[in-house]
Amino acid sequence: MTDERIETVSSVGERALIARLRSRVSETVGVRVGIGDDCALVETAAATLLTTDSLVEGVHFDRALTPARLLGRKALSVNLSDIGAMSGVPRYALVNLCLPTDCPVDFFDGLYEGLIERAAEVGVGIVGGNLSATSGPITIAVTVVGLGDRPILRRGVQVGDLVVITGGLGAAAEGLRLLREGVRLADDGAIIDTGIWTPNSEAPLARCVRAHLDPTPPLAFARAMSETAGTVRAMMDLSDGLSLDLIRMCAENSIGAVIDPLAVPVDPAVAMIERARGGDPLPLALHGGEDYQLLMAVSPGSIDAVRDLAFVWDLPITVIGQFVVGAPVVSVQVGEWIEPLKSQGYDHFGYRGSSRPASS
Amino acid sequence: MTDERIETVSSVGERALIARLRSRVSETVGVRVGIGDDCALVETAAATLLTTDSLVEGVHFDRALTPARLLGRKALSVNLSDIGAMSGVPRYALVNLCLPTDCPVDFFDGLYEGLIERAAEVGVGIVGGNLSATSGPITIAVTVVGLGDRPILRRGVQVGDLVVITGGLGAAAEGLRLLREGVRLADDGAIIDTGIWTPNSEAPLARCVRAHLDPTPPLAFARAMSETAGTVRAMMDLSDGLSLDLIRMCAENSIGAVIDPLAVPVDPAVAMIERARGGDPLPLALHGGEDYQLLMAVSPGSIDAVRDLAFVWDLPITVIGQFVVGAPVVSVQVGEWIEPLKSQGYDHFGYRGSSRPASS
Repeated sequence: MTDERIETVSSVGERALIARLRSRVSETVGVRVGIGDDCALVETAAATLLTTDSLVEGVHFDRALTPARLLGRKALSVNLSDIGAMSGVPRYALVNLCLPTDCPVDFFDGLYEGLIERAAEVGVGIVGGNLSATSGPITIAVTVVGLGDRPILRRGVQVGDLVVITGGLGAAAEGLRLLREGVRLADDGAIIDTGIWTPNSEAPLARCVRAHLDPTPPLAFARAMSETAGTVRAMMDLSDGLSLDLIRMCAENSIGAVIDPLAVPVDPAVAMIERARGGDPLPLALHGGEDYQLLMAVSPGSIDAVRDLAFVWDLPITVIGQFVVGAPVVSVQVGEWIEPLKSQGYDHFGYRGSSRPASS
Repeated sequence: MTDERIETVSSVGERALIARLRSRVSETVGVRVGIGDDCALVETAAATLLTTDSLVEGVHFDRALTPARLLGRKALSVNLSDIGAMSGVPRYALVNLCLPTDCPVDFFDGLYEGLIERAAEVGVGIVGGNLSATSGPITIAVTVVGLGDRPILRRGVQVGDLVVITGGLGAAAEGLRLLREGVRLADDGAIIDTGIWTPNSEAPLARCVRAHLDPTPPLAFARAMSETAGTVRAMMDLSDGLSLDLIRMCAENSIGAVIDPLAVPVDPAVAMIERARGGDPLPLALHGGEDYQLLMAVSPGSIDAVRDLAFVWDLPITVIGQFVVGAPVVSVQVGEWIEPLKSQGYDHFGYRGSSRPASS
């Protein structure tokens, strides 16, 4: 069904769309020249963080399940998570957008509403970008530039350091499953359909679907981690699933890790929902992906300092294991029983089994 | 025809592709942390330029007409042009690549060969990026970060300033036409097929097709323009066609311009080819797009200084007109005859006539 009256990006035109954006993006500290010149010109310090990530329709999201505003927020947030993972402060963003010509202008507007809103929440200026037609799916590539004066890298782990994670895991993966079961959010993030679930499950449903559609990485806590030098030896964000990301940190440091699967903090909403379905929440927490929490290596002598900061920032942290001498393998240990954890993270071109399914 | 033995990005896998890249990208000055962590960490000064641009298969290029190595070079060069247009120095690049799973690994390798080669030519470090699958066309979004200590903006034009452009125009537009007539370049930029043209036309054919597939914006001259403060009052690159880009500069300054069409410097290879076909080279030079030359506003008192620098950098410059009081309209004037120039630049979502056709 095509409604002739639906306004599309093609009926508005590239220049009008850019003019529209330019009028909506507000001024931000440090931006000397924003949208409209050949480049943006921004103020920076001696050390700058750079990261880029994209959301591709059919791979990272399904337009039918994803309110445009939340998609805009997420396109920025996945990059903010990377800046946070280096203990940086996000400052500026560039948005490189490819749209099919029949894309409704309402979608374009909603997407930018989300981008602009999320940018304002974290003090980021949207300083430029690019708009192109495509014959394929909507593709949103965002680049974020941040202050990197006190970076915490993936390297630096020492044998004996504790494996520490923030928050609870599995909610985003559960949220994706719930979307497929008919649960829907409105543009404002409220539940509008509980799908196969009863309305009294609304709170945990909303929490999980929101975690998938609108993740909020713990930026303030991540930044605080750099304030007490050497407390956190290494850090990265959990984007592709704990099992895969922990192996990456191990590989980067030529070190192994042993974790207690029973210590892995499952998000309470996931626990509730899986109890209701008679399922097991642990695989979602271990392999689910898109948690956008932090994975840290903390020396045993510093764990109390990290706990104190976590209390200040109201963010649960959990020690789930320890880094050990050995090959970059993650093992799970319960009492005397120990075996290697099979990573099931996401590989874009992987023919190997992948546990993180695309949204479509 | 699908050859089962062709190695695709999907048979190699995302992690192996990234590992491959990481080993090929060389170390660059100022890069503290490159590919492999959550973000790149780079050294910057107080003022930084940011720009992003994308090449989309079927919109900006046709895979059948475009050697992968040259495409990689161009994906970087279109961004370098923006940095040059602000009189900056390009320093770092991020590459955000979306590939169909059946994309041959040879294409991926060729693309990165071109990116890495071009980056090395201009002292740019490829410090990060992102790799994603897509169900649609190949999409290459590149972000370039540069030094912006002495920026020349689009604003700053004064009534009476001269309209000055570098180089000759129309070659890229002619090159696209020649590709459609069967002219082909190899990965190394040499002519391998002259299509409908006789082999003795090889030199101008190669020059035009190369201008389309592998543009080389005048970065050194652009940087030199900032060294004599105030000489060039405003500057931008010519990417969407002189007629459209000049109107943009006028609009940015609420000023008009009058140009002499006979003064517009047509690239000599375009003149030769159009003479052979009995065509008119001027429309290509006025509206063709993708010239990646510079459009400058120069005060009459400074034009000799600009000419001297152009001589040093061996780059022709031409005065084609003057900025005048009035609405942002470009007029063409020959003797007493004067009329508004209709812009025919490229709009990605435009339903209005567009003279810059897609490559496919």
